[in-house]
Amino acid sequence: MPEVATAAPAQPTQRRNGATLLFEHAHVTGAASIAGPVEGRGPLGGHFDELAPDQLMGQRSWERAESHLLARAFSRLCDRLHLQKGDFDLLLAGDLLNQTVASAFAARDLDLPFCGLYNACATFAEALGLAAALCDAGFCRRVAVGTSSHHEAAERQYRFPTEFGSQRPPSAQWTATGAVMVAVESAAAQRAEARITAFTPGRVIDYGVKDPFQMGAAMAPAAADTLAIHLGDLRRGASDYGVIYTGDLARVGVPLCEELLRARGYDLRLHDCGTELFDPEHQDVHAGGSGAACSALVFAARLLPGLRGGDYGRICLCSTGSLHSTTTYQQGESIPAVAHALTLEATSAG
Amino acid sequence: MPEVATAAPAQPTQRRNGATLLFEHAHVTGAASIAGPVEGRGPLGGHFDELAPDQLMGQRSWERAESHLLARAFSRLCDRLHLQKGDFDLLLAGDLLNQTVASAFAARDLDLPFCGLYNACATFAEALGLAAALCDAGFCRRVAVGTSSHHEAAERQYRFPTEFGSQRPPSAQWTATGAVMVAVESAAAQRAEARITAFTPGRVIDYGVKDPFQMGAAMAPAAADTLAIHLGDLRRGASDYGVIYTGDLARVGVPLCEELLRARGYDLRLHDCGTELFDPEHQDVHAGGSGAACSALVFAARLLPGLRGGDYGRICLCSTGSLHSTTTYQQGESIPAVAHALTLEATSAG
Repeated sequence: MPEVATAAPAQPTQRRNGATLLFEHAHVTGAASIAGPVEGRGPLGGHFDELAPDQLMGQRSWERAESHLLARAFSRLCDRLHLQKGDFDLLLAGDLLNQTVASAFAARDLDLPFCGLYNACATFAEALGLAAALCDAGFCRRVAVGTSSHHEAAERQYRFPTEFGSQRPPSAQWTATGAVMVAVESAAAQRAEARITAFTPGRVIDYGVKDPFQMGAAMAPAAADTLAIHLGDLRRGASDYGVIYTGDLARVGVPLCEELLRARGYDLRLHDCGTELFDPEHQDVHAGGSGAACSALVFAARLLPGLRGGDYGRICLCSTGSLHSTTTYQQGESIPAVAHALTLEATSAG
Repeated sequence: MPEVATAAPAQPTQRRNGATLLFEHAHVTGAASIAGPVEGRGPLGGHFDELAPDQLMGQRSWERAESHLLARAFSRLCDRLHLQKGDFDLLLAGDLLNQTVASAFAARDLDLPFCGLYNACATFAEALGLAAALCDAGFCRRVAVGTSSHHEAAERQYRFPTEFGSQRPPSAQWTATGAVMVAVESAAAQRAEARITAFTPGRVIDYGVKDPFQMGAAMAPAAADTLAIHLGDLRRGASDYGVIYTGDLARVGVPLCEELLRARGYDLRLHDCGTELFDPEHQDVHAGGSGAACSALVFAARLLPGLRGGDYGRICLCSTGSLHSTTTYQQGESIPAVAHALTLEATSAG
């Protein structure tokens, strides 16, 4: 092996184009997913690593159950990769609960350095993008990325206690119960399942929607903005991707986002994690799924296996987040939204 | 200028030692601070860039006022550095409000790519550390780092409405009102005021404290753990630093942290942002200050000027965060805490 001083200099890496961060050494080496009982009865039910039998999972509160889901997903990830928790340098995680306590309490049990993130249901893409940057640059060898959400815990925090039985309008979405942990690594490990090659952190966009039962409409402009910037920075179009997924625009938001993208010159057929997580014919989830776990569950159950198995050479995932709180809603504020886009490629590609 | 292919290869940068990230190209080029009226009457009152005349600042809610503080701090930062908002690649921000809405609503007005963070009052060091990594590696040229807190908005969310006049025990801390924006840049700009040279993201530690009026005690173990790791990874001791600051352990937490550090072989005299933000003799803040703005305000008013002016060659700032929510408190859970440590050096040093 030649000494460092005489080795041929590598071309300097281009790490940014426009608003988009570019990666050469950010590998997804595995994911573990745990879904709730309703998600388990959905079309992806057979593709999760584990199904929770009920919403409490033996814990004394729904909030504890959500933390338990996240810690359990991490444990399964370690088992799958034959790793110990000390083999991870950092945990990047976030969730929907006030003060992101599901992540904080899980982090306590995981005993890893922990940076907490919050961009609502866009947190999954935010965390994957930041993990890719830290690994690509060599700051971390291996980062655990986790998000979770819990239907009952979210409903009582954001809307009504589920026992109250409040009627929901057709545009409402169903907060998914589940948790996902993903391993992102710098080394081109033999077992890499996909590479993260680009990340566009999005701007906060607010079109003035004030109804929290219209989250798809509130988030569609942010998704369109980030996707247009992501594709523009990479000089790519629909034909360059196997599939392009939004996070949880669901049935109301997807056509709005497609229309906004057409106005910017992108004629895209979007898939949506919130639309595919549940079966609209047989599950009473109204417009579709949502929650910080929503895009993470579909990533773990469908997108990553698709990259690993050769169904897709390249995909785009644009997770979408609605950045309101019950306080801002009650004060009559509109709902700002954010979306973060990632490009992932099969390890054989590129 | 030689072609890239014939230039002498640089030594590969060592980007990590133990749990600590190492930086060579992360510069703090400026900060702007806005403090509330109580903070303005404290010992650092003359060192903030602007003082808010009251807690509402012409806004219709305390939450709006907190967003306004953050956006206003950004505006002052741009003025100081003669920059436009488009000159920043990214905003990393967080605050204490549920769903970090102060940051989200400010980000809407700033129109920058936004990654939201949450580690309670440790968010400031978390954000500076991640910004330093993104700049050092060349993913971003310039990142805006912001945190805020607001006394009234925090009190009514976490404890009691301030109008209620609930009596607070002597160990309680006073959530600071204020906001700070810091510019972190990759280029060794002539105007750099300091360099960020190391960042240790901390583990979540929980010693079982359940009383939210004992946050200093709850956070002291996390601060001791992170400081011991930070100094150990860097092979440094007290004599290598001009000053070592914790975030907001205040008068109860500082001696506990010093004692825990002595047990790990570090005999440190800690300064604390929460202790220095207010005047304990003449201001009724009980054990001292807290809040996501607390360590940020002292950084902007005392630490950064000290580095710029040559008072310190090297400092350590370890921001501390208490990761509970009102829900976890009411459910009888204990308070997990986290602390993140940074080393900053004068630009003439190193």
